[in-house]
Amino acid sequence: MGSRTLALGHQLFMLLLLLPRLFVNPVGARQCFWPGPSPEDAGCLSWRVMVEANNARGWRTVPSQCVGYVTGYMTRGQYLRDLAGVMEHASAYVDEVAADADGLDAWVFDVDDTCLSNLFYYEAKQFGAYDPLAFKDWASKRSCPAILPVLQLFTTLMDKGFTVFLLSGRDEESLGSCTAENLEAEGFSGYERLMMRTPEYRGQSSSLFKSAMRQQLVDAGYRIRGNVGDQWSDLQGDCVGDRVFKIPNPMYFVP
Amino acid sequence: MGSRTLALGHQLFMLLLLLPRLFVNPVGARQCFWPGPSPEDAGCLSWRVMVEANNARGWRTVPSQCVGYVTGYMTRGQYLRDLAGVMEHASAYVDEVAADADGLDAWVFDVDDTCLSNLFYYEAKQFGAYDPLAFKDWASKRSCPAILPVLQLFTTLMDKGFTVFLLSGRDEESLGSCTAENLEAEGFSGYERLMMRTPEYRGQSSSLFKSAMRQQLVDAGYRIRGNVGDQWSDLQGDCVGDRVFKIPNPMYFVP
Repeated sequence: MGSRTLALGHQLFMLLLLLPRLFVNPVGARQCFWPGPSPEDAGCLSWRVMVEANNARGWRTVPSQCVGYVTGYMTRGQYLRDLAGVMEHASAYVDEVAADADGLDAWVFDVDDTCLSNLFYYEAKQFGAYDPLAFKDWASKRSCPAILPVLQLFTTLMDKGFTVFLLSGRDEESLGSCTAENLEAEGFSGYERLMMRTPEYRGQSSSLFKSAMRQQLVDAGYRIRGNVGDQWSDLQGDCVGDRVFKIPNPMYFVP
Repeated sequence: MGSRTLALGHQLFMLLLLLPRLFVNPVGARQCFWPGPSPEDAGCLSWRVMVEANNARGWRTVPSQCVGYVTGYMTRGQYLRDLAGVMEHASAYVDEVAADADGLDAWVFDVDDTCLSNLFYYEAKQFGAYDPLAFKDWASKRSCPAILPVLQLFTTLMDKGFTVFLLSGRDEESLGSCTAENLEAEGFSGYERLMMRTPEYRGQSSSLFKSAMRQQLVDAGYRIRGNVGDQWSDLQGDCVGDRVFKIPNPMYFVP
């Protein structure tokens, strides 16, 4: 590229970079008054990617202009394609690691929207703010379907001799038995232990609680080879494991 | 929802989850033989989100079927919208934190494709494998344009009294002066220090090198309040800072 062409390209590039700053409100992009860079999705794709990259944190509900977008994302194929992609990467990683005969090579899975889907629940309430009583009612029904690509990874890991722990922020006292039954009915069998929130961790953030639980595993000699969750709070903190896999979830945020 | 409706929904949901496993190859989705869930983008949106969420790691080039997609993403608006969204979140965070008068409240910015854009370079070579000589030639031209939304964040932070460090994996000996000149010409002025790779860190991963540099800052008393980079290797490791912001980059991967 000649230097004049480069200089012209440079100017154009800077103009392109300026345009959206001047004319686009990145979330409420329907408000923009310049037709060029207006997205068709009201900025909801940008928002979803920010959620997955952990740039968007602490949000209490899906932005109102994105409720329809998130419904479409979850139910019309893209969620399943994204999920399949993540599981392909997990499978490729599993192919590279072997489980030692000592039984201490472990994987950790989150439960809600990692092993079991709450899509019906959240879609019915239009992804509104967290409602602990309504969620408890839903979870008590034991009707959360398995997320099958995750079940397949779980099964592969069991077959390969890994020790699998399920780690859930659900309250053990009130939801322990129904969660275990739901998991069993959906095919999640043979895992080492379902670790749930005991009274002493009530009110603590998921990140703190899960770090403490993983620390217990490591203290017991386990080597956490992989960690699968739909929230960054499953995948950050202490003893996160050699490799983490972020399952897509634009429905809610857990700190 | 009645229990029969729920059961029916359950079956449908499981079927939906099964379909893409049976019929879609998540990356090379053009090979699928079931028309329903076939994506128009050959799985490249899924791939891009996996890059941003750090699920796809260690890739040497953009997948061949995604070169056109990445070009379109970078040049037709979505990259700029995504970037604007991340900067909005960074600005909201900056509004919440104050810089102490002791000058020790710091931010760290990566350089390549965080402060300065290499889009022209990578697009011209169709996002091919890393070529250190060609990249050195490109960088020596001092022609990388500023990424203006990041420059705006940089300027805001300087105005608010934060101490800003630029941390680049570029080789200091060969590219130190031209990098500093390029930054200056593009408006990145007044930062505390441009920290580049010295001979002792040659051959080390960016993650290790940058962790060591940030550790030096923390040892010198700085409190890293924010950290901005386009690679997860900028944002993970030691002393990453109170909050990290991932700038989109589906062009290349740095370990």
